[in-house]
Amino acid sequence: MTGKFISFEGGEGAGKSTQIARLAARLRAAGRAVTETREPGGTPGAEAIRALLVSGTADRWDAITEALLMNAARADHVTRVIRPALAAGQVVLCDRYVDSTLVYQGQAGDLSALRQLHKYATGNLWPDLTLWLDLPVKQGLIRASTRGDSGRFEAKGLAFHERVRAGFAALAAAEPARVMRVDASGDEEAVAERVWGAVAWRL
Amino acid sequence: MTGKFISFEGGEGAGKSTQIARLAARLRAAGRAVTETREPGGTPGAEAIRALLVSGTADRWDAITEALLMNAARADHVTRVIRPALAAGQVVLCDRYVDSTLVYQGQAGDLSALRQLHKYATGNLWPDLTLWLDLPVKQGLIRASTRGDSGRFEAKGLAFHERVRAGFAALAAAEPARVMRVDASGDEEAVAERVWGAVAWRL
Ligand SMILES: Nc1ncnc2c1ncn2[C@@H]1O[C@H](COP(=O)(O)OP(=O)(O)OP(=O)(O)O)[C@@H](O)[C@H]1O
Ligand SMILES: Nc1ncnc2c1ncn2[C@@H]1O[C@H](COP(=O)(O)OP(=O)(O)OP(=O)(O)O)[C@@H](O)[C@H]1O
Ligand SMILES: [Mg+2]
Ligand SMILES: [Mg+2]
Repeated sequence: MTGKFISFEGGEGAGKSTQIARLAARLRAAGRAVTETREPGGTPGAEAIRALLVSGTADRWDAITEALLMNAARADHVTRVIRPALAAGQVVLCDRYVDSTLVYQGQAGDLSALRQLHKYATGNLWPDLTLWLDLPVKQGLIRASTRGDSGRFEAKGLAFHERVRAGFAALAAAEPARVMRVDASGDEEAVAERVWGAVAWRL
Repeated sequence: MTGKFISFEGGEGAGKSTQIARLAARLRAAGRAVTETREPGGTPGAEAIRALLVSGTADRWDAITEALLMNAARADHVTRVIRPALAAGQVVLCDRYVDSTLVYQGQAGDLSALRQLHKYATGNLWPDLTLWLDLPVKQGLIRASTRGDSGRFEAKGLAFHERVRAGFAALAAAEPARVMRVDASGDEEAVAERVWGAVAWRL
């Protein structure tokens, strides 16, 4: 039996981490084995790379260096956590994955080079389903700010985050069978029902 | 005026760092502006990536993750140090560069993917001249061990280092106009004369 790989995407504060925790609990209650993980990170090596990515000034890395670091972290994570969990038949819930790289690092340009890089880093592993939690940028930044921490990406300014949202919308339009938009407004419970509706019939 | 980019390659303890210091001094005495640098490293960001690469157990990173980290460090280094120095007309002496990646990370396989990665990371910047300091593996490891420090790569065993030497030999055979073998045996003075002979007429 081979598992299911579901990624959660969206801007800062959209509710990805919150919804992954809820979905994991619900799947476990239904008897499924679940791996919850996140990017960049998810292994000791990838978390060390993450520390380089999220600290420092907003211009610490240029877009190409950033994309290479993201893919280095992802290569480690896919090889050591995601592929083994899928091979064991688990449901893998991953907080950000390739679409974040396409949207965040792709702003500087070449999407086809980024897809090449993804193929090299992961052996071309794409999620079975990607849930894009979509929320107006300002609402997401307000949610994220009440949470307290804030780093390099939060510091990039409103126009940057609007381009991120437009980027996710373009990916959802280009790959409708994989990337599903989920309205992330309203309370946690309401969003969780929408997420469950998208996931349940696929498992 | 555009500068000259010279990389030094070879196994551990072959004398790269020693010969770069000597050549830099001689070039400066002859009135040239010189940037001495090294890989992985050469910028604050790339040195932070280097710290991940050289510490930990020998199997901390698999070949693909390692290649991505090397290229991330290289991207930062090329953009922020090497290209500006070349644009200013300097001679850049770099301790290891792309050939080390081809030889060390290429042992796991796909050289053409590594060349693609190099193109992405550096905008396809190749050295004008590469000096391969060639020394029998055991002599190099003895030199390196008397120097005291030792890390992840030194720990990889004799067969690995023999493959490294064969790898450099293959690159020198494939690109004779760029990669020049320099006999690295004998005392520092003798090797320095050979290096000078290879470099002087090209500048
Ligand atoms: N539907 C919701 N309504 C209001 N607040 C929410 C909702 N969902 C999550 N939150 C809160 O908003 C904040 C951000 O949520 P969460 O951390 O899940 O978002 P995220 O998408 O993971 O953000 P980041 O990209 O920064 O990791 C948290 O404080 C969380 O408790
Ligand atoms: N020609 C030589 N004969 C004997 N010892 C040498 C010679 N050249 C350098 N050494 C010594 O050998 C050691 C290794 O030299 P060096 O650090 O220059 O090598 P390297 O190629 O830079 O090594 P690494 O790859 O480990 O950085 C040093 O202690 C150095 O002083
Ligand atoms: Mg989160
Ligand atoms: Mg050295």
